[in-house]
Amino acid sequence: MTDTTTAPETDPVALTAALIRCPSVTPEEGGALVLLEELLTGAGFECHRADRGEVSNLFARWGAKGHARTFGFNGHTDVVPVGDPADWSVDPFGAVEKDGLLWGRGATDMKSGVAAFAAAAIDFVRDTPPDGAVILTITGDEEGPATHGTTAILDWMAANGEAMTDCLVGEPTCPERMGEMIKIGRRGSISAWFTAQGVQGHSAYPHRARNPLPAMARLMDRLASHRLDEGTEHFDPSTLAVVTIDTGNPATNVIPAKCRATVNIRFNDIHSGASLTEWMRAEADRVAAETGIEITMTTKLTGEAFLTPPGALSEMVSSAVAAETNVVPELSTTGGTSDARFIKDHCPVVEFGLVGQTMHQVDETVPVDQIRQLKRIYTRILREYFA
Amino acid sequence: MTDTTTAPETDPVALTAALIRCPSVTPEEGGALVLLEELLTGAGFECHRADRGEVSNLFARWGAKGHARTFGFNGHTDVVPVGDPADWSVDPFGAVEKDGLLWGRGATDMKSGVAAFAAAAIDFVRDTPPDGAVILTITGDEEGPATHGTTAILDWMAANGEAMTDCLVGEPTCPERMGEMIKIGRRGSISAWFTAQGVQGHSAYPHRARNPLPAMARLMDRLASHRLDEGTEHFDPSTLAVVTIDTGNPATNVIPAKCRATVNIRFNDIHSGASLTEWMRAEADRVAAETGIEITMTTKLTGEAFLTPPGALSEMVSSAVAAETNVVPELSTTGGTSDARFIKDHCPVVEFGLVGQTMHQVDETVPVDQIRQLKRIYTRILREYFA
Repeated sequence: MTDTTTAPETDPVALTAALIRCPSVTPEEGGALVLLEELLTGAGFECHRADRGEVSNLFARWGAKGHARTFGFNGHTDVVPVGDPADWSVDPFGAVEKDGLLWGRGATDMKSGVAAFAAAAIDFVRDTPPDGAVILTITGDEEGPATHGTTAILDWMAANGEAMTDCLVGEPTCPERMGEMIKIGRRGSISAWFTAQGVQGHSAYPHRARNPLPAMARLMDRLASHRLDEGTEHFDPSTLAVVTIDTGNPATNVIPAKCRATVNIRFNDIHSGASLTEWMRAEADRVAAETGIEITMTTKLTGEAFLTPPGALSEMVSSAVAAETNVVPELSTTGGTSDARFIKDHCPVVEFGLVGQTMHQVDETVPVDQIRQLKRIYTRILREYFA
Repeated sequence: MTDTTTAPETDPVALTAALIRCPSVTPEEGGALVLLEELLTGAGFECHRADRGEVSNLFARWGAKGHARTFGFNGHTDVVPVGDPADWSVDPFGAVEKDGLLWGRGATDMKSGVAAFAAAAIDFVRDTPPDGAVILTITGDEEGPATHGTTAILDWMAANGEAMTDCLVGEPTCPERMGEMIKIGRRGSISAWFTAQGVQGHSAYPHRARNPLPAMARLMDRLASHRLDEGTEHFDPSTLAVVTIDTGNPATNVIPAKCRATVNIRFNDIHSGASLTEWMRAEADRVAAETGIEITMTTKLTGEAFLTPPGALSEMVSSAVAAETNVVPELSTTGGTSDARFIKDHCPVVEFGLVGQTMHQVDETVPVDQIRQLKRIYTRILREYFA
């Protein structure tokens, strides 16, 4: 008799369910990172909690520190609030499985993604130990301010001689069908808050007042009418959205003193936070000069645009996705921001994960088959990477 | 011995003080009209209370009904709220007299005006009974909605065969110096409420949303930039004030579904409520066609522009003012609305009264000398009218 016993495969569905049962609404750790730390330590990973502020973060490495072939995964265990639990068909932290779906907050975004890459990494290093290292960086604050999340892990890594040579973020990336999209970059995002300041007065005597509203209306029309660009090779055209204009004056016989407005720009790689700030400031100054109304502006840059140009990493992920799903994924830069915006300063980074349709919604669900399929894809990527 | 006894002159200062002590904040009668009705009845006036809704109104006539020479005065005894009484130096309904000033809510606007024309009329008809009639129309709602105020009196008059051949409204008309301004008309006023309706969405995917804000901003810029006219012979240029633009969207990553804005137009005699409604509707339609955003509009006309062209009435009032004050008054159409907008449909109407600087303010005051001067001016007008 030969011994055919092998360790059982790590079940990514059971792991997703266990993570859903941890109520880890940002910034609560909720038991999710503790659970992963225990599991990974048991599987031979060296773990470190890179907590900062009120945020909990987990770093885990299998293999030699500083190895020239170190593949990284990144994800988060924190989830957005459930809203009114009464709106849910199930306990949002119950991880009920029915009709082939696993239900709960974080089912899609992204406890399943974390479970899939953790399960893939554990089984891969155990069954076919590579000549290299695998790092998992898992944060407890991606849905919140993200100030002390992945950034804190990356800071700790830099301070401790830890590095990834390539990284895959396991966020949901597929709009409708499993396998259809890999993200190779993201547009940047900047918001600007404008205040137009005039002098209050009576509507019947406008010459004694200075109305800030026409100035603000003109500025918003100008900003919204301007076409920022026509798009670039890998990016859609940049867009500007005027998201609010507010005065709060209930009296038709009063000219108000102040008006506020906010715009948000999603921009591609021919702009930067600085260039857009300069452009908006110039437009505001032009309207101020035309109208005599003082316009102040403050901005907040959420992230610069970035791109990991198509190459070895994206081709490897693409072929793994295509092999498991029979779908050739599109290399995209659409969508909101993700923690890839921090990682891109350290190594090439792409993102691939599940279909994101129910994320942040009531009754968030994930098909259990997709979790298993995602684990197989991540396993293929590891196999290919270390081949 | 000849009998030189004459009845004592009616003191307009004492009457003003008595009226201030009546707390007649719109729509409260507060005892003010009851006091006047008693006084006028005792002086031989035929009185009728033309109350309507919650509003009290007083009609008083001396002389024959329907006489071809019937001079009218119009005014109001209601006052605006005092605000926080603690902000006042005196009891706002105390009618304190100090430093040559009478203090209290309504001191300027316009219990002094009512007292001056009532005192003038009482003494005039007693001392030199004219071949004609004098009518006083005094409302308890000029500061409020004015729906059941002077309009109710005019309706009652029309139904009862009462008419004025000319009318003077005793509102404060002088900006700074007693005697400097007579109002011979008023600009019209119309407000318009706009709603731009789009489709809500995520700022990162503006092509899936339809943002109503740029459309509203463009419309407000267009309306505010348009020069309505250059003024007319007796009127200043019409003015348009954008008084509020509101969205109420706190999230920079959300494109809102709706935006609201309000404008107020003060217009001269080459426009009408209808022509301005048509113009604004056309501008809104043009922006809607350019942007694909639906824009709805509702309007409210407070009053059409009107003019009593300079002539016999204004000349008579001017010469009386000049004789008493040594100031030649300007014939003006500036300022907000007054009840003259209702009277102008019945007979020629002009307005003359005190300096309005403290009206609606805390510590409203009136110089007692000006009240006596105003009574003398009104007396001169009556004398001249019936000469």
